[in-house]
Amino acid sequence: MGSKNRNKGFIVWIDLRDRYGITQLVFDEKRTPKNVFEAAQGLGREFVIQVKGKVIERESKNPNMATGAIEVLVNELNVLNPSITPPFTIEDDTDGGEELRMQYRYLDLRRNPVKDNLLFRHKVNMEVRNYLSQSGFIDIETPYLIKSTPEGARDFVVPSRMNEGKFYALPQSPQTFKQLLMIGGLDKYFQIVKCFRDEDLRADRQPEFTQIDCEMTFVEQEDILIQFEGLTRHLLKEIKGVEVDDFPRISYDQAMKIYGTDKPDIRFGMCFKELNALAQGKGFGVFDNQELVVGITVPRSAEMSRKEIDALIDWMKRPQIGSKGLVYVKCNKDGSFKSSVDKFFSSKDLESWAKHCEAQAGDLILILSGEKKTTRIQLSALRIELATRLGLRNPFEFAPLWITDFPLLEWDDESKRYQAMHHPFTAPKPEHIEFLKSDPGSVKANAYDLVMNGNEIGGGSIRIHDQKLQAQLFDLLGFTTEEAKAQFGFLMNAFQYGAPPHGGIAFGLDRLVAILGGEETIRDFIAFPKNNSGRDVMIDTPSSLSQNQLDELYLKSTSKK
Amino acid sequence: MGSKNRNKGFIVWIDLRDRYGITQLVFDEKRTPKNVFEAAQGLGREFVIQVKGKVIERESKNPNMATGAIEVLVNELNVLNPSITPPFTIEDDTDGGEELRMQYRYLDLRRNPVKDNLLFRHKVNMEVRNYLSQSGFIDIETPYLIKSTPEGARDFVVPSRMNEGKFYALPQSPQTFKQLLMIGGLDKYFQIVKCFRDEDLRADRQPEFTQIDCEMTFVEQEDILIQFEGLTRHLLKEIKGVEVDDFPRISYDQAMKIYGTDKPDIRFGMCFKELNALAQGKGFGVFDNQELVVGITVPRSAEMSRKEIDALIDWMKRPQIGSKGLVYVKCNKDGSFKSSVDKFFSSKDLESWAKHCEAQAGDLILILSGEKKTTRIQLSALRIELATRLGLRNPFEFAPLWITDFPLLEWDDESKRYQAMHHPFTAPKPEHIEFLKSDPGSVKANAYDLVMNGNEIGGGSIRIHDQKLQAQLFDLLGFTTEEAKAQFGFLMNAFQYGAPPHGGIAFGLDRLVAILGGEETIRDFIAFPKNNSGRDVMIDTPSSLSQNQLDELYLKSTSKK
Repeated sequence: MGSKNRNKGFIVWIDLRDRYGITQLVFDEKRTPKNVFEAAQGLGREFVIQVKGKVIERESKNPNMATGAIEVLVNELNVLNPSITPPFTIEDDTDGGEELRMQYRYLDLRRNPVKDNLLFRHKVNMEVRNYLSQSGFIDIETPYLIKSTPEGARDFVVPSRMNEGKFYALPQSPQTFKQLLMIGGLDKYFQIVKCFRDEDLRADRQPEFTQIDCEMTFVEQEDILIQFEGLTRHLLKEIKGVEVDDFPRISYDQAMKIYGTDKPDIRFGMCFKELNALAQGKGFGVFDNQELVVGITVPRSAEMSRKEIDALIDWMKRPQIGSKGLVYVKCNKDGSFKSSVDKFFSSKDLESWAKHCEAQAGDLILILSGEKKTTRIQLSALRIELATRLGLRNPFEFAPLWITDFPLLEWDDESKRYQAMHHPFTAPKPEHIEFLKSDPGSVKANAYDLVMNGNEIGGGSIRIHDQKLQAQLFDLLGFTTEEAKAQFGFLMNAFQYGAPPHGGIAFGLDRLVAILGGEETIRDFIAFPKNNSGRDVMIDTPSSLSQNQLDELYLKSTSKK
Repeated sequence: MGSKNRNKGFIVWIDLRDRYGITQLVFDEKRTPKNVFEAAQGLGREFVIQVKGKVIERESKNPNMATGAIEVLVNELNVLNPSITPPFTIEDDTDGGEELRMQYRYLDLRRNPVKDNLLFRHKVNMEVRNYLSQSGFIDIETPYLIKSTPEGARDFVVPSRMNEGKFYALPQSPQTFKQLLMIGGLDKYFQIVKCFRDEDLRADRQPEFTQIDCEMTFVEQEDILIQFEGLTRHLLKEIKGVEVDDFPRISYDQAMKIYGTDKPDIRFGMCFKELNALAQGKGFGVFDNQELVVGITVPRSAEMSRKEIDALIDWMKRPQIGSKGLVYVKCNKDGSFKSSVDKFFSSKDLESWAKHCEAQAGDLILILSGEKKTTRIQLSALRIELATRLGLRNPFEFAPLWITDFPLLEWDDESKRYQAMHHPFTAPKPEHIEFLKSDPGSVKANAYDLVMNGNEIGGGSIRIHDQKLQAQLFDLLGFTTEEAKAQFGFLMNAFQYGAPPHGGIAFGLDRLVAILGGEETIRDFIAFPKNNSGRDVMIDTPSSLSQNQLDELYLKSTSKK
C-alpha cells in the first residue's frame, strides 16, 4: 500500500508499505514507460498496488530506513484497489483522535505502533505456550457456555433456545473446570483463554479479556511460585533480553504497611515510614488521635517551591484521592529543616522524623495522617505520582515481586458478611483452619499475586480439595446448603472421588503484554478493543435483535429505549 | 491414585496411577511397618495417596507394562484424600454408559483412552501453532462479543446490561474480523478459536466448536492450497509418522458426479458410473425417463446371498436413506451374469454395463435410478456403508483431497432465493462475474474444501475485496441496501480504503483431531462436551437465572416452563 507520495512533475516517489516495512518506488519520466508514469501520477495514499521494476541504488540514501540505500525503478504497475482519503494519516504519529481511530481500527492497525504491539503479543503468546508445553503442561480447552454463578462479579449470560427459559453463562474464568481437570488426573494444565466479566467498566478494563490459566496437582505454594518465576524469567529473557534473578516475596500485611497497596512498584524506594510514636502527643491535632501518621521520603526534592507543594496538596485533595491535606518537611542541604508544622514541632522533632524516614539532606518528607486504610491508599497514590514525575519508573526495568499470605476473607460492610478475597475455592493455611469459626477475619490463605512494576500480572492459590472444608467455606460466605449444592454441587461431588491436592495461577495476558511492552494501557495491545461503555464502535455493537430472535429465545425486552 | 487393589491377607498390592502410568506398590506383612501395612488394608479404589518406599525387582514380571519389571515396597503411607466408590470402573474398558460417564466426566478423564485423546489434541494444537508461526502467521485474538447477523445459522446472543435493550452475539466464526485484519495490513493471520452456532444439534455436533482460522493477503487460490497442504503434510508426518505426497484435486461437479458427495472418501474406489446411455430405452420403467441411472462396483461381492442383498435393500429403504429399491448385477466368476433385471436386459447388456463399471469377474454392481441429486446422495451412503463393511476404510491410512470450484450460490426452494454456498464474502471466479446477473446459479467460486477420509476437515475461499462486487452479492442474496449497511457496513466501508486481495481457510480442530486419531466422534476429543440437547449434564447447564439478573438485563422470560 502506498503510504506517502511525492510528485515533482518529472519524477514520482512512492513509499510502498507492507507488514515488513517500507520500500521506495521511483517513477521517472525518462526511464519509466509513459503509460506507467502517467498511472503513477494518479496514485493516492493507501492505494493497493502491484509493481515490477529494478532494484537500484539510491542517489540520496536514508540511513534511518532499513531499505534506505535502495529504491525500485518501476516499469510495470497494476492498481489492485484504490483508496479514498483515509480519515486520519496513517503514520507513527497520527493526527487521529482515539474515537476516530477506534471506529476505523482496520486503518489504525496499519500504523507501526499498533501493528508492532500485535506482533509483540503474538511473540509473548508463543513463548508462553512453548515454555509451558515443554514443562509438561497440557493445553486443554474448557467450555465457554457454562453455568451462571451469581457470586462476585456479574456474568454475561446466553439464553438457550433449545432449553426453554434456561441460560448459559460465559466464564469469568475456567476456575472450576481446571479444578475438575486436576481431579481428572491431568496433572499440569494450561490454557490461554478468553474470560468475561459484566462489570461497570473503569478506564482500561475490557468486558472480555485473556488469561493464561494454569493448574497443577500434588503441589504446595512453593512449587507454583518456583514454576512461574521460571516462566516470567524466561519471558523477560527471550522477549526483552533482561535477566532478572530476584523474585522477592513479601506478605500482604507487609505490602500494605510499606507501600499502602498490594501491588507495589519496587523499582524505586520511597517506602512508608510510620511516625505515630514520634509525631503524636505533641499537641498537633491533625496527627493526634489518628490511627496512622505515615510519611515517605522524596529524594532530592527539598527545593520544591511553595507553589509546587500547594499544587501537590491540591492534587491530593481531588475527589479521586480525597486527602484532607499534606504535611511536608524539607531537609535542607545545610542540615536545617523547614516544615509546614514548624509551629508544633521542634527542629529536634523533625530531625528524629528525618532519621526514621532515612531522609538525607536535600530530600523532602511528605506526611499524611488519618484512618489506616484510607491514608495508606492516599499515600500510595502520591508515591506513584511523584515517582512518575521524578522519572523513577523506568519502562525498561522489570521488578517482579510476590505478594503472599493474603487474608482468606474480607468483611463487606454493605452485605454485612465475609466475602472471599480471591474466590471461594482458595484454601486457608492449614494452621489457620481452626480459626475459621472463632476469628474468620484473621485467617490467611495460601494465595499469592505476582506483581510487576506496580501492576498485578498474575494471581493464584492452593485450592481446597476437601469436601467438608469447602462446605464450611460456602457456609461462611453466606451460601445456604441448597445454594451451594445448586451452584457448585458438581465440584463438591467431585471432591468425594479422590481429589488430589492442587493449586494454580492465572496471568492477565493483556496486562502482561502491555507491561512487557513498557506500557500500561492494555487497549493498545488488543486488536479490536471495546470502549469504556463496552461498545465496539467499529462494528457498532451491541445492537438490537429482531423480534423473531427474541421470540425464539422465549424473551421479551422490557427496555423503554 | 490407587486404581486396583489386591489383598491376600499377608500381602497387599496396589496399582498406583498418575498421568504418566501405573506403578505397582507392595505392602508386605513381614517387610512393611505394621501401622503402614494395616493402613494399606483400608485403601480403596481412587484413594489419593503419598508413599515412600524402595524400588525393587518384581518376582513375576509383567512384560505388557512399562513399569512391569519393578514394584515399590512401601514403608511410609499418607492418605491425601479418600474416595467413595466411583459410579463406574475407571479402566480402559469401562462398564459406564455414555450418560453416566458424561455426568462424572472428571472420572472419565482418568481413563487412558480419554486422557490420551486430550494429550493427542494438545500435541496437534502445538504442532499447528508452531508450524504456522514459523511460516510467518501471527496469532491474533478477535473478539467474542460481536454483532448478531441473522444470516445463515442462528447466533447465540448475549444481552448487554450497560447498553439497555441491546445484545452482543457470539461469533459463528471470526470471518469479518480476519478480513479486517487483512485490510489492516497484517498479511498472515491465524487463530485457534472457539466458534458458536445455535443449531438444532445433530449427532456429534457441538454448539461450541474450535476452528483453526487462517487468512492471507496478496494470494490466489493456488497459494493457499500449497500453504495448507504443507500444514496437513506436516501434521501427518509429525503426529502420525505418515508421509503423504499427493493432494489430488477435483472440482465440486466432478466430486458429485463420481462420489455423489462433496466430501468423498478416496481410500477406496467404487466410483460412480453413469449408465443412462446403456440402460435406458430398453423398456425397464424404473430406469427409463429417470434423470440418472448410476452404479457402483463392489469388489469381490458377487457371492452375496439373496438374503444379504435383501437386507441391503431394506437398509436403503430406511427413511434416513429413502431409496425405493436397488438393482444388482452379479458378475459371476465363470463370466456369466445374474441380475435382478434379467427380464429386461440381455446378458450382452449386462456385459456392457460391467465393462463400463470396470467390474471384474467376482464383483457385484449395484445400481440406483431417479432424480439426480437424491440418487447421488443415496448411492454415496451405500458406497460408504459397503466400504466400511468390507474393511476398506483403514483408520491408519490418510487420503486428503481438495474439492474446488464450488458453486457460489445455491437456490433455496423455501425462501425462493439464492443463498451463499459458503458465505456472502466468497469471491466468484473473475471470469464468471459477468454471469452474476444473467445466470447466478452457474457462477463458480474460488472456494475450496480439504477433505480427508470422507470428512471435511477444512474449507475456505478467496474473498471479495471490492465494495461494488460485495454490494452486488448482498443484493443477489436478498439484502436490501439498508440491511447490508446495518449488518456489514463496517466491512463495506473498509473496502474503500485500499483493501488488498485476500483469502483464507478454516479447519475444524475437533474433527481434524478425531480424524488424525483414527476416529470420527469429536466428542471423545473434547474435555467437557455437551450432549445432543446442548446440555452439560455434569455442571447441569443451561439453568435458570434469578429474576434480579433478568431485570438488570431489561428482559422478561416468556417461558411457561
